[in-house]
Amino acid sequence: MATVAELLQPVENDLETLLSDLRSLIGAGHPILQAAAEHLFSAGGKRIRPGIVLLLSRALSPDGELSSRHRRLAEITEMIHTASLVHDDVVDEASTRRGVDTVHSRFNNRLAVLAGDFLFAQASWHLANLDDLAVVKLLSRVIMDLADGEVRQGLYRYDTGQSFETYLDKSYCKTASLIANSAKASGVLSGLGNDRLEDLYRFGRQLGLAFQVVDDILDFTGSDQQLGKPAASDLATGYLTAPVLYALEERPALAGLIERELCEPDDLSQALALVRGCEAIPRSRALAEGFAREAGEALQWLNPSDSRTALLSLPEFVLSRLY
Amino acid sequence: MATVAELLQPVENDLETLLSDLRSLIGAGHPILQAAAEHLFSAGGKRIRPGIVLLLSRALSPDGELSSRHRRLAEITEMIHTASLVHDDVVDEASTRRGVDTVHSRFNNRLAVLAGDFLFAQASWHLANLDDLAVVKLLSRVIMDLADGEVRQGLYRYDTGQSFETYLDKSYCKTASLIANSAKASGVLSGLGNDRLEDLYRFGRQLGLAFQVVDDILDFTGSDQQLGKPAASDLATGYLTAPVLYALEERPALAGLIERELCEPDDLSQALALVRGCEAIPRSRALAEGFAREAGEALQWLNPSDSRTALLSLPEFVLSRLY
Repeated sequence: MATVAELLQPVENDLETLLSDLRSLIGAGHPILQAAAEHLFSAGGKRIRPGIVLLLSRALSPDGELSSRHRRLAEITEMIHTASLVHDDVVDEASTRRGVDTVHSRFNNRLAVLAGDFLFAQASWHLANLDDLAVVKLLSRVIMDLADGEVRQGLYRYDTGQSFETYLDKSYCKTASLIANSAKASGVLSGLGNDRLEDLYRFGRQLGLAFQVVDDILDFTGSDQQLGKPAASDLATGYLTAPVLYALEERPALAGLIERELCEPDDLSQALALVRGCEAIPRSRALAEGFAREAGEALQWLNPSDSRTALLSLPEFVLSRLY
Repeated sequence: MATVAELLQPVENDLETLLSDLRSLIGAGHPILQAAAEHLFSAGGKRIRPGIVLLLSRALSPDGELSSRHRRLAEITEMIHTASLVHDDVVDEASTRRGVDTVHSRFNNRLAVLAGDFLFAQASWHLANLDDLAVVKLLSRVIMDLADGEVRQGLYRYDTGQSFETYLDKSYCKTASLIANSAKASGVLSGLGNDRLEDLYRFGRQLGLAFQVVDDILDFTGSDQQLGKPAASDLATGYLTAPVLYALEERPALAGLIERELCEPDDLSQALALVRGCEAIPRSRALAEGFAREAGEALQWLNPSDSRTALLSLPEFVLSRLY
């Protein structure tokens, strides 16, 4: 299986340009943000989100070239994503992400709030100046979904009565909305009709959900080192994801442990054993596979190009993290 | 002189509706935000910003009635203002505002970040759905200016070499931009031509600057009780405002105290005595009076109405806080 870098090869130079543009955009004239910008746009991010926008933009372009508005859309996507990560890390009190110190632990809460606000503000300004109301609506919906998802995630901590739909809604808001709506926005800028725009949206939505479910599985099957954070940290924080929700159906004893917020010394390891010892992980894997398949199906109509090949490899790539 | 409530009387009912709409909008379905929303939209705010939008909208309307889009614009204005206050209080580590506990001191940093993001997100979503690209651009500029102003304010702490222009730019970003651009947006929704739009912008800009300079003067002349925060807290924090910048021209000794960050026990009271004992306060007052006069001049063309009368009393009202 290809690495991310290999997969994003058709837009490798575009991503380099994007990152250096973002670093100078955020750092310019603001020394106290400079360090945060360097930190944010140099750290181990995989840049899959702007990569998807760039690949789609190239795949949809008659001559395979990128317009400056498509480039700008990719930048906005990454700004919104980064801003939301920086603020989420404050809200979740996370001290590392992907094995790298978070802004608020490396600097402080104040700078993290400021840097996130600055990024959101830049994103909304550049968004307005793309001069396309449909695109503004799509991306402002993303900003709303991100805030909504973060609120909901907090709301349902340790709640064993939550429905599977609640979990999927939250996953849509926190992960899939950005990919779905920025994919669709890229089609809007390319002048596509409604049916094709819905295909792009569906591609992004299903890919984002697959991505999130895979992440949620890895929280139970990966090592601390693979994850760049302690294993089972979602469960320990009270965030109940697909594997836990499936396990609750098969192992009623799990509910008791979670409802007392895993407060006894052995609760977390017992809960882990229950999740790992039933069909929860295989069922979660089947769920992710379904989403990934649907994502691939949504883009079959694209004309042949390197970018199309890369896009159609993405669902498989997302799943490959499980093997 | 009239009170704020008397001044805003022509839109008193509109403001009541606006506040109850905002409370239900933010709190709905999110219990953890409910308390923050109650706190934010019930506390001692004077609602001057949405009040100005509502007064202008009524003054510009042929039949004196408000359109639903003008109402929505006023709500967006208050959401953006409140979101920025909540985040600024985290960044500035303020524990009270207008004598009331801030969200992050009453609840915590996490909820303050979340509530601010949620408000910004709602604002940008409703903004996009006003379906007017010019209005989107004006208000997204405000969001950018607010973030920019907050960054700059931090950048120039204790910097006695900063120019008066730096101070005015910062004041524009943090206070005047919202009033100026929302006033202009209200004219855009009313279908005014460019010259009138510029008048509205100038009214808001000069009124906002007058308001900020008055606030900066009160920091030196008001009591803790009048201000709802410790007197001279700007200077103590290193924020150099009009009175200090004028005083630096007349009292060179002040620079030394500020440059060592007022770290010796008597530094703050000595600095205060220097500011109060020269022409700095009268000169600042003259500056505010100039801005207020220009604000009033910008709106003379409005047709007679209760709303016009209220709007033209605002500059005088802003100054009246000094007497």
